[in-house]
Amino acid sequence: MKSYREELWFETTSRRAYLNITPQVEAAVKKSGVREGLVLVNAMHITASVYINDDEPGLLHDYDEFLERIAPHEARYRHNDTGEDNGDAHVKRQIMGREIVVAVTGGKLDFGPWEQIFYGEFDGRRRKRVLIKVIGE
Amino acid sequence: MKSYREELWFETTSRRAYLNITPQVEAAVKKSGVREGLVLVNAMHITASVYINDDEPGLLHDYDEFLERIAPHEARYRHNDTGEDNGDAHVKRQIMGREIVVAVTGGKLDFGPWEQIFYGEFDGRRRKRVLIKVIGE
Amino acid sequence: MKSYREELWFETTSRRAYLNITPQVEAAVKKSGVREGLVLVNAMHITASVYINDDEPGLLHDYDEFLERIAPHEARYRHNDTGEDNGDAHVKRQIMGREIVVAVTGGKLDFGPWEQIFYGEFDGRRRKRVLIKVIGE
Repeated sequence: MKSYREELWFETTSRRAYLNITPQVEAAVKKSGVREGLVLVNAMHITASVYINDDEPGLLHDYDEFLERIAPHEARYRHNDTGEDNGDAHVKRQIMGREIVVAVTGGKLDFGPWEQIFYGEFDGRRRKRVLIKVIGE
Repeated sequence: MKSYREELWFETTSRRAYLNITPQVEAAVKKSGVREGLVLVNAMHITASVYINDDEPGLLHDYDEFLERIAPHEARYRHNDTGEDNGDAHVKRQIMGREIVVAVTGGKLDFGPWEQIFYGEFDGRRRKRVLIKVIGE
Repeated sequence: MKSYREELWFETTSRRAYLNITPQVEAAVKKSGVREGLVLVNAMHITASVYINDDEPGLLHDYDEFLERIAPHEARYRHNDTGEDNGDAHVKRQIMGREIVVAVTGGKLDFGPWEQIFYGEFDGRRRKRVLIKVIGE
């Protein structure tokens, strides 16, 4: 069994951002040498997500509006009593998820026609990481 | 390490549908010959989900009502300016999730008493796919 | 390839509870002898979650309040016509997720600074299980 590990680093200029990281994950799978296996991609921070959906600007706007509607930044969060102001980001991240697992087949991401991997940032403007772990043969 | 790949195809007659696909996943695990490992089952389209819960008609109705309440089909979505009418389906899919990963133990899905695998369709009436990938030994 | 399987059992005294199970998962990874691989941790019941976030009491309160706001226990659920009273728990579990997959690197959980694994119980006061499955080398 082969395994491969890589970290991606981000520092967004806005509080919330949605970044297409598919090329970086494809490159990591290639470097891994794995032909058949699984790749895990996860946020290493608890106010960010990795998820799979369409790379369409209108949709990214819809996601942002939906998340802000059901967990507004300005609402009251007990977590913010600790001095943080990111209670909403912990909720938004749970809805969008922490991680994705993708099949590797023939050395490539085994994807449907529109699948793209996104880093969803809900409390940015600081350096944060994503982990890529590939296992297989 | 063994690996096995299979696609399931669906074309639902309604926009939204919830289909129990546990027997197909069980059959794929059997065909894989894997005794100990993991099976990944994911929607290959971005307006559909694979999730695990109970096969009870009232619950499927509750899920559908819940999803339609928090992301109604008839609401305004920026994504629909592209000519699509499935902005809601992209949101519903994020809530229910893209994929599940299940342990394979002794050649079988390692499940609790009520776990069943569902394909959740939120923009049907077209041919769409689910990917099954089994790895292990 | 090595594989290892372990069950954790819980019986919470309240209907809803959020338990940090990171030490148990760390111990299982150590027992597995796996140095490089993946660990799957999933609820075996369909009204409970395994998720990763911060171990901060205010945040646990915020999660509970958020889940109760969007899927209240006292609302009307078709599922409850079966004689159950846990329709809300099936919805809450979908939002928080069934499972997490974590990279194992150098024999340890490959975690960011604040990641902690939680068992989220939404219909407790009975014996329920979590499955840990480790695969790798």
